[in-house]
Amino acid sequence: MLLTGTVVADSETVIPDGAVVVSGSRIEAVGERSAVAPGYADHEHQSYDVLLPGLVGGHVHSVQSLGRGIADDTELLDWLFDYILPMEASLSAEEMAVAAKLGYLEMIESGTTTCVDHLSVAHADEAFEAAGEIGIRGVLGKVLMDQRSPDGLLEDTQAALDESERLIRRYHGSFDDRVRYAVTPRFAVSCSEECLRGARELADAYDGVRIHTHASENRSEIETVKEDTGMRNIHWLDEVGLTGEDVVLAHCVWTDESEREVLAETGTHVTHCPSSNMKLASGIAPVRDYLDRGVNVALGNDGPPCNNTLDAFTEMRQASLLGKVDRLDPTATPAGDVFEMATINGARAAGFDDLGAIREGWRADIVGLSTDLSRATPLHDVLSHLVFAAHGDDVRFTMVDGTVLQEGGEVTAIDAEAVRRKASEVGLGMDLTAERRSAWRHKP
Amino acid sequence: MLLTGTVVADSETVIPDGAVVVSGSRIEAVGERSAVAPGYADHEHQSYDVLLPGLVGGHVHSVQSLGRGIADDTELLDWLFDYILPMEASLSAEEMAVAAKLGYLEMIESGTTTCVDHLSVAHADEAFEAAGEIGIRGVLGKVLMDQRSPDGLLEDTQAALDESERLIRRYHGSFDDRVRYAVTPRFAVSCSEECLRGARELADAYDGVRIHTHASENRSEIETVKEDTGMRNIHWLDEVGLTGEDVVLAHCVWTDESEREVLAETGTHVTHCPSSNMKLASGIAPVRDYLDRGVNVALGNDGPPCNNTLDAFTEMRQASLLGKVDRLDPTATPAGDVFEMATINGARAAGFDDLGAIREGWRADIVGLSTDLSRATPLHDVLSHLVFAAHGDDVRFTMVDGTVLQEGGEVTAIDAEAVRRKASEVGLGMDLTAERRSAWRHKP
Repeated sequence: MLLTGTVVADSETVIPDGAVVVSGSRIEAVGERSAVAPGYADHEHQSYDVLLPGLVGGHVHSVQSLGRGIADDTELLDWLFDYILPMEASLSAEEMAVAAKLGYLEMIESGTTTCVDHLSVAHADEAFEAAGEIGIRGVLGKVLMDQRSPDGLLEDTQAALDESERLIRRYHGSFDDRVRYAVTPRFAVSCSEECLRGARELADAYDGVRIHTHASENRSEIETVKEDTGMRNIHWLDEVGLTGEDVVLAHCVWTDESEREVLAETGTHVTHCPSSNMKLASGIAPVRDYLDRGVNVALGNDGPPCNNTLDAFTEMRQASLLGKVDRLDPTATPAGDVFEMATINGARAAGFDDLGAIREGWRADIVGLSTDLSRATPLHDVLSHLVFAAHGDDVRFTMVDGTVLQEGGEVTAIDAEAVRRKASEVGLGMDLTAERRSAWRHKP
Repeated sequence: MLLTGTVVADSETVIPDGAVVVSGSRIEAVGERSAVAPGYADHEHQSYDVLLPGLVGGHVHSVQSLGRGIADDTELLDWLFDYILPMEASLSAEEMAVAAKLGYLEMIESGTTTCVDHLSVAHADEAFEAAGEIGIRGVLGKVLMDQRSPDGLLEDTQAALDESERLIRRYHGSFDDRVRYAVTPRFAVSCSEECLRGARELADAYDGVRIHTHASENRSEIETVKEDTGMRNIHWLDEVGLTGEDVVLAHCVWTDESEREVLAETGTHVTHCPSSNMKLASGIAPVRDYLDRGVNVALGNDGPPCNNTLDAFTEMRQASLLGKVDRLDPTATPAGDVFEMATINGARAAGFDDLGAIREGWRADIVGLSTDLSRATPLHDVLSHLVFAAHGDDVRFTMVDGTVLQEGGEVTAIDAEAVRRKASEVGLGMDLTAERRSAWRHKP
């Protein structure tokens, strides 16, 4: 397929009248249209105002999609234990499939082509199958919770690890290696030492399996881990093997100097989730500091109940703006840096070293969007537009692994209306009454 | 006209199957569809998923629209003196008209029906005429700059005040009182005491004329005013008469306890501009504190070069999220509070006491939007959706003063394509070279 438009190949390479050729699942050529296109005149040709690498959601919860808007303006522990965990525990396999599909649909519509997806304890198969069916690229993992967790989510340690291993064998590298596995402890608070060490062992036993967990998101979490282990959270994770080049830690808001050194030295990936950290009032992650230390920082929308969208353009804007005001320095987190966070850094965190830029031979995950908009006028600077003014709504074309999932603004990968209809039905049918919620309440 | 849909009449009143009847420029009826609609069966009828009061941009710079994206990631003084002021000074009357039209177009497309608009020193007539033509509601003002300002903007004090008075006589209350005047000193740094006192005298001399200025946006501004006057900025403004119920102060990021008391005691309106304050790294305004003191806080996108959009939905989301993380309290700035900031508080700041909610007898500024979107699914809570997940892109219907400016997603008020085409041509033709910019450089 021949694609033409202004090509933002990476944060430093904009080709105003460019072309990209995709063959199979790979990018065969990229360059100026006049140089590239003539050789592919017989190929299918589509044109969009701007072509960019598909965006990477470095930390999402697709299966929380049905809880969008159920617990705004709520204290974190109430949010988690009164609303989110009860919802996760209550969903049937079929409902979990609906939730996952809604999440993947929203992402491919709005330009996210890869996600590092924190599922729930049960019914992970449904999410893997949904990712496979819809065509998104994903590093998914069943959640591990073997302590301080409410009934319905709490699992026996070995059973949880065994189930993870079953899923690895079944899904890691599936769908032409578009879908991979990450062992996914929820966070240190809800996982025993045996569980965390078991996660590391599993990841070591299977080539390319990653580890994905929440870390140092809020202060009470830090205090709990300190009480349990006598250590700061990142040191504890390091102690049990949950740092390293195959580990993605979401949030990392509350880290001290020594912990940041550990992150940098071990090559651990950090996923920054600015909107979620703001909405849950967790705090502001020291992103500029991480980048200066050489930590690979990805970007994530987290889940719909704490964002409330999976629009990665919103998150790029947020990451830049929050980084600037946090340092009182407008140069702290420029557009190029956050574009890299949402593309190539995210791809690295997800474990793909040939993804996240439009380069010859790389995986063909490509997004096309329209700039025929007042908020894109005048278009002085395409990268500025993508980071500061574009919305996921502008996305008209989404390709993953060379397969078209959306074109001309229409999703072709799945019946979008049917997914939304089913998601509304299931979501609005959930029992969110205080009685139902209190039955699940089990704060640590 | 009969409008039906879920009516969000104000932050506390949602009518799921509602109806609004508009007669002339006023709302004639609002209520449940079954009760209201039968009496108006012969009226023109349009239906949208959600109907809400038109949003109010409590501080915008429509005429900076051509500079969208020209000075991102830039230090404030460089931003202002190297890019923004030179651009303002260089625009011809025709170009200023194009800039204003682009700003008003973007606002009416994305649901902002009223703006408190900080124009430039010259060619204010063009903006007034553009607002009149397009149909937006606006409180506009020519900018006053009589000290510490570059050539091309610096004016003689009396000449500047005289020109303001000419504009008041010509435009205040024009277009059926849809367009009004605000005397608009740029900020204390660029205005002499005579100029500031003159602004107060002008506002007092004409009924309903307001005063609109920037205040306490950044720390160097505070220091300069302190050096000049020996006072903190808000005390200085109070001293020269620029506080009170007819005054709108944009930003108010850096205020101390005693200044906040002045704002509350005098009934001065504050316009919070969270995205701008973040992008320019100005700081975080103490919004929760202002609200707790009873200060009326409106919301503003500021200008396209520091936002980079005029989408008020983005700004509601930002205000809520920033307020939460600033206080490390997720309940600090709930959805209802920021919805009020963007609607009824903004209307009050603009000087309209029958605007900003859908109420019988009030002015008919109404927006309709679509929720047939993945990011609006499931729709557990309409207000949550409007604040946290909606975009201006979702707006399909815009009515100001009973006149339809957009319906079915198509702008009817003006040829949108022609405005964008002309704005691109003029904007991309501006001379932004370093040579040109340095000729204008004149930092205080």
